[in-house]
Amino acid sequence: MAVVVSARGGRTDDLLQLAADVGAASPSRELDQLLAVGECESAALMALTLNGLGVPAISLTGHQAGIQTTDRHGDALISRIGAGRVRAALEGGNVAVVTGFQGVDHAGDIVTLGRGGSDTSAVALAARLRAVACDIFTDVDGVFSADPRILPAARCLPWVQPGVMAEMAFAGARVLHTRCIELAAMEGVEVRVRNVASQAPGTTIVDRPDDRPLETRKAVVAVTHDTDVARVLVHCRDIRRDLAPEVFEVLAKQGTVVDLVARSGPYENEFRMGFTIRRSQADSVRTALHNVAAAFGGGVHLDENVGKVSVVGMGLLSRPEYTARLMSALAAAGIPTSWISTSQMRLSVIVPREFTVDAVETLHRAFHLDRHEPHEPMDVTSTASGRSAAI
Amino acid sequence: MAVVVSARGGRTDDLLQLAADVGAASPSRELDQLLAVGECESAALMALTLNGLGVPAISLTGHQAGIQTTDRHGDALISRIGAGRVRAALEGGNVAVVTGFQGVDHAGDIVTLGRGGSDTSAVALAARLRAVACDIFTDVDGVFSADPRILPAARCLPWVQPGVMAEMAFAGARVLHTRCIELAAMEGVEVRVRNVASQAPGTTIVDRPDDRPLETRKAVVAVTHDTDVARVLVHCRDIRRDLAPEVFEVLAKQGTVVDLVARSGPYENEFRMGFTIRRSQADSVRTALHNVAAAFGGGVHLDENVGKVSVVGMGLLSRPEYTARLMSALAAAGIPTSWISTSQMRLSVIVPREFTVDAVETLHRAFHLDRHEPHEPMDVTSTASGRSAAI
Repeated sequence: MAVVVSARGGRTDDLLQLAADVGAASPSRELDQLLAVGECESAALMALTLNGLGVPAISLTGHQAGIQTTDRHGDALISRIGAGRVRAALEGGNVAVVTGFQGVDHAGDIVTLGRGGSDTSAVALAARLRAVACDIFTDVDGVFSADPRILPAARCLPWVQPGVMAEMAFAGARVLHTRCIELAAMEGVEVRVRNVASQAPGTTIVDRPDDRPLETRKAVVAVTHDTDVARVLVHCRDIRRDLAPEVFEVLAKQGTVVDLVARSGPYENEFRMGFTIRRSQADSVRTALHNVAAAFGGGVHLDENVGKVSVVGMGLLSRPEYTARLMSALAAAGIPTSWISTSQMRLSVIVPREFTVDAVETLHRAFHLDRHEPHEPMDVTSTASGRSAAI
Repeated sequence: MAVVVSARGGRTDDLLQLAADVGAASPSRELDQLLAVGECESAALMALTLNGLGVPAISLTGHQAGIQTTDRHGDALISRIGAGRVRAALEGGNVAVVTGFQGVDHAGDIVTLGRGGSDTSAVALAARLRAVACDIFTDVDGVFSADPRILPAARCLPWVQPGVMAEMAFAGARVLHTRCIELAAMEGVEVRVRNVASQAPGTTIVDRPDDRPLETRKAVVAVTHDTDVARVLVHCRDIRRDLAPEVFEVLAKQGTVVDLVARSGPYENEFRMGFTIRRSQADSVRTALHNVAAAFGGGVHLDENVGKVSVVGMGLLSRPEYTARLMSALAAAGIPTSWISTSQMRLSVIVPREFTVDAVETLHRAFHLDRHEPHEPMDVTSTASGRSAAI
């Protein structure tokens, strides 16, 4: 068995505070050298504990485990795993205890993967070892149909499709690192989310057939929300001046993840492009984009008083009544919506921040996610159902 | 072995012509009764042929095979399969030859599934029988990284993730019915696309691990395009008047699949909502939406001179440099773009129709889809690569 460990609770924050105390704040080589200590401690302590219990165990740092990454300090991607030492440890009858969240770049420097990165380390290692499954232990019972902290009616899902889970994670379900799920989907790793403190069966992320009716089963799996979001509008008086390439280059350079991108078309009198970003990145994005837009007589609006609510599933655009139901349900509940984005796996709308929880409740009910019936018939033709579902 | 058959080439068109000759055009009960004949012929002929070759075979109509559907004539969804007779045929040592494209609704009436529906029948039956795989025989060698008819450099992909394939099918890859792929993804059916006239290995639609580098592998799988597309803008002078629920209800009632939905937000002076539809539905949508908008002093713009070009893959939004690369590459190639839509699995842009092929070529090159190297390193940090990739 291979085990991937995170730092002990609060340890990474403590290390960040220590760095701040000496005046360092942004990700850099030295900060990563420091942060990596947290997982090294955990791995060694875990191996010591296991050995004490009579279970042979060997701890391995990211470097020792052969985890190679890109060189973006604080936000690296795993490029390759040369798992020779891990395999040797396993073949020697040991538990291999590997540090999550860290690897080494081509220069041999320690780099970290960003918050939640230990999940991604675990999946990457499971893929490399061709493990039969990857259990991720956390503090909740599994993946829910909505955030149970704001919606007690949310149900714990026994299993979720990998692609759907990737979309859920991106759209605000915080139980797993987005990149961890993308990697699991790309690698075909079966991930199980389990509560370390309970015997709950957890949620398995896997492609699995089931016995429910075929094309008419409900395609919506969960409602997710995200309040770490701000909306941005870049505008410029000259419709012939296309700022889109410059804007996206600026955002990419900052590593800013954007969503709900929309831009003006030929019917408009000025160039406008809107999108959402993480609220925590609002200040740096505002400054950078202002410089781009101001050069052409344009400007930037930024609104942090919003929330993003999404329904996630499979084949949503092939069922146009779903978008109708979403809009009708929110309208019937008196929840104002503005920007919207649709794809086969996710319908997202922007609402005023204070309506975020209302919107989650409304959509959870409108798409019957609170019902347990496994064979529930789905409305597939009636558009009127969009309204009735919201009653 | 169970075999699902389509009508012989041209047979469905002939039947539609016969119906037109007697004055019937739109999907209805009698038209479905007529169209279902094509597959019944094929199934019986196939069973006769097999028996003649000494292979015991039994043909089964949709009704006999227990394929239950919704009652939307011409565009039904499969709700359930009671496969008792299929199983009995198989257990008796026969090949079960089942008609695709058709089923029966709750009243026992014959309904058809829409063009391409036989693919969906095959996957649904495979799921019901827990088949190890579902081979779909067609007239091309498999699924390509772009349409090989317009881009000779396109490569045949040995395998594609189910979620990615669903997105590709929706975005214009015509090799398989969109619903067939969604169903395969939901049911965990392994689908293989093979050329009936060659020994090519084909393309397998399956979650499969591979040995390429992990998070830094290229996430874009294919470029797809769609010219059966029109863009629609609904507007209304009063920004406080939210037409979105009404518009989506009208579209859902017509069964109109929409994409690239975007609408005006609080910074605008009037309500505007834009989206794309199938061009073939432009006339009926124009009329229906005009009635909605005109009631509030608004109107509808409809533009059929556009094409939609998409890059499809996994985790695209988590890599903001991808959107930057797409926009930069098209700009560097002098291809004007207007509306844009982004999701984790697909980035789509609208271009003038005459630039569609240029855009496919440009993006296929910009995302290195013409390269065969399995271990190609990917640019993951440099935004400048967006420009250089287009040179």
